[in-house]
Amino acid sequence: MRDVAIIGTGVTKFGELWYRSFRDIGIEAGLKAVADSGLAGNEIDGMYIGNMSAGRFINQQHIDALIADYSGMATNHVSCTRVEAGEASGAVAFKEGVMAVASGLQDFVVVAGAEKMTDIDDASITSILDDTADAEWEASMGLTLASLHAMIAKRMIHDGMATREEIASVSVNSHAHGALNPNAQYRKAIELKTVLNSGAVATPLGMFDCAPNSDGAAAVVLCPLERAKEFTDSYVKVASLAQTSDTLALFQRNSITSFAATVEAGKMAYARAGITPADISVAEIHDNFSVSGILALQDLGFYEKGKAGKAFLDGEVTLGGGKLTVNTSGGLKARGHPVGATGVAHIAEITDQLRNRADKRQVKDAKYGLAQSVGGTGSAVVVSILEAI
Amino acid sequence: MRDVAIIGTGVTKFGELWYRSFRDIGIEAGLKAVADSGLAGNEIDGMYIGNMSAGRFINQQHIDALIADYSGMATNHVSCTRVEAGEASGAVAFKEGVMAVASGLQDFVVVAGAEKMTDIDDASITSILDDTADAEWEASMGLTLASLHAMIAKRMIHDGMATREEIASVSVNSHAHGALNPNAQYRKAIELKTVLNSGAVATPLGMFDCAPNSDGAAAVVLCPLERAKEFTDSYVKVASLAQTSDTLALFQRNSITSFAATVEAGKMAYARAGITPADISVAEIHDNFSVSGILALQDLGFYEKGKAGKAFLDGEVTLGGGKLTVNTSGGLKARGHPVGATGVAHIAEITDQLRNRADKRQVKDAKYGLAQSVGGTGSAVVVSILEAI
Repeated sequence: MRDVAIIGTGVTKFGELWYRSFRDIGIEAGLKAVADSGLAGNEIDGMYIGNMSAGRFINQQHIDALIADYSGMATNHVSCTRVEAGEASGAVAFKEGVMAVASGLQDFVVVAGAEKMTDIDDASITSILDDTADAEWEASMGLTLASLHAMIAKRMIHDGMATREEIASVSVNSHAHGALNPNAQYRKAIELKTVLNSGAVATPLGMFDCAPNSDGAAAVVLCPLERAKEFTDSYVKVASLAQTSDTLALFQRNSITSFAATVEAGKMAYARAGITPADISVAEIHDNFSVSGILALQDLGFYEKGKAGKAFLDGEVTLGGGKLTVNTSGGLKARGHPVGATGVAHIAEITDQLRNRADKRQVKDAKYGLAQSVGGTGSAVVVSILEAI
Repeated sequence: MRDVAIIGTGVTKFGELWYRSFRDIGIEAGLKAVADSGLAGNEIDGMYIGNMSAGRFINQQHIDALIADYSGMATNHVSCTRVEAGEASGAVAFKEGVMAVASGLQDFVVVAGAEKMTDIDDASITSILDDTADAEWEASMGLTLASLHAMIAKRMIHDGMATREEIASVSVNSHAHGALNPNAQYRKAIELKTVLNSGAVATPLGMFDCAPNSDGAAAVVLCPLERAKEFTDSYVKVASLAQTSDTLALFQRNSITSFAATVEAGKMAYARAGITPADISVAEIHDNFSVSGILALQDLGFYEKGKAGKAFLDGEVTLGGGKLTVNTSGGLKARGHPVGATGVAHIAEITDQLRNRADKRQVKDAKYGLAQSVGGTGSAVVVSILEAI
């Protein structure tokens, strides 16, 4: 298996982009990433696209062909593959792209993630998102992703594993960083009381505990590590990645205050990279709901159970706070969460951190960075570890 | 890149399976394939699933997790990835699975394709299928996949490249073989006049020129070639595969009587396998409409332009007819076309042909077999070549 490098990144503005089309933002991210990589477009021999639900959001399926076509790649008949794994779609597309290069089947691969969510009404969006829960045993009973995560939060509070304030502070951390990210949907720092006083979505979670609906796209360019220098001096190595699964329905788990799929993916990724959580300086995690941030830091081995909430509340994972900085991009809560794009945006942010291109969000002297993406309520997890060169 | 073997196949009955659920048929195919392979279930370390549109057919997304869960694989947190490329979804899932093993990331991978189409009304099914055309420039104008293929057929007839009878004979070939396949949706041979007299769908294409809407699933098990003998004496080698793209909309092509994506994928696949079309004894091609069969045999280099129709009409590609036998499974027309399953069912059929397990459909002494899958109107194509061991 060949080592793989990331040699370019491209991210669009995230937000409610009513004036832009799906194909438009997908292509923007891809072109930015290719321009950044130093590759000529005709060198690209493979594309992957992470997308959760264009078939329902914009009535367009077969978006592999759509993107190949509108990027001009169809002229050369370049292969393009769409991957879906709920909200982890972008992360799984990244994994497939890395595999394509690692296997030797392809040399220069663009991985993009894109989603256009806000052209339809909010109730329809929620209904589509809830289809990543178990349609038969959860969604049909009225359960939503928000109410499922509210149950997790309630259980955490009940078990003394986190306080309401600690849970809310995950959103405060994301907004603190989002304020520094020009592409973020929400570029405003918020106070704890804003989260605590926000309108109830599913008690105890309020509006500010929930990532928004967003439009946006992100892309990265991959090539064999040994060839990266031909194109750029600014690249990172894919140290490892791991993908895991769990039951689709939350009620079938032994515990709902830990996602076993995250625990396993983390262990596999650390082992494959030959490092421990202590080696990671910067992490992008899947804070689709505030409480998910606490789950992630504990399940990934950064904090013991019951300790991650305090780290968020104390600002320990906020820029300048401690050894590990979390969600410098603004995370899903403040950067925005165009579901299929999120996993790739994570990778782009970690890449830019490790090559010192994160501007005001820059973490100092980071050697390793980690990205975690989650589908549904921990039903599919991808953990990727990148290494500065 | 490691060589990859197929060591097991499993296919469900195809048809209108109103009494069975998506998860049910997906699991049946997977379990059959694993049982056939000789692997113990707990050795499997990766799964891929080709599916076009569960989000719209059955309101269930995140079917990677659904299948991981219901197959029992989620207990071990085995990764499961869903791939979509319109009607080529199953074939692309197969390609990703082969890459996972070839890259060394995984050793024992199950690739399944599944679709449950017939639980909703026919108009809705058609609308979903048409979303693999260009939603903005084709489907919104009232174009359907049937009418797009009717235009191709008309142009072929106009250019003297095929007669109406030759086009119709593609369906006759598929039904002749479907009659021999116990899992086929339609197990009845038909006469040419049945196709010619069938009710118009989009002139010149009638009902019997069009593949049906179907439910069904298929699966294969992959492992490194050098390990295949540990599990079974009956396996085949993946000699090569290639995936290509083209414009999403048909009107943007230079020619509509040839799919350039098929031509390119074929060339790449032959080159990678080190063979020519003359080495292929058995082929499964994407006859979603009768006319597509003629396109496929010409674009894949089996016949010159304008000659494939006569081959179908003369029975040259029907069992016992000539050097190349086409769609021994019954093809999309007679075996049925559960869109996400079709590409994997193709691979299962070729595998079973090459290991002499195709019963009444068996082609003699086949060394190489080819499978072709198409998304939309030639917007994405996968060609795989398998080799008998």
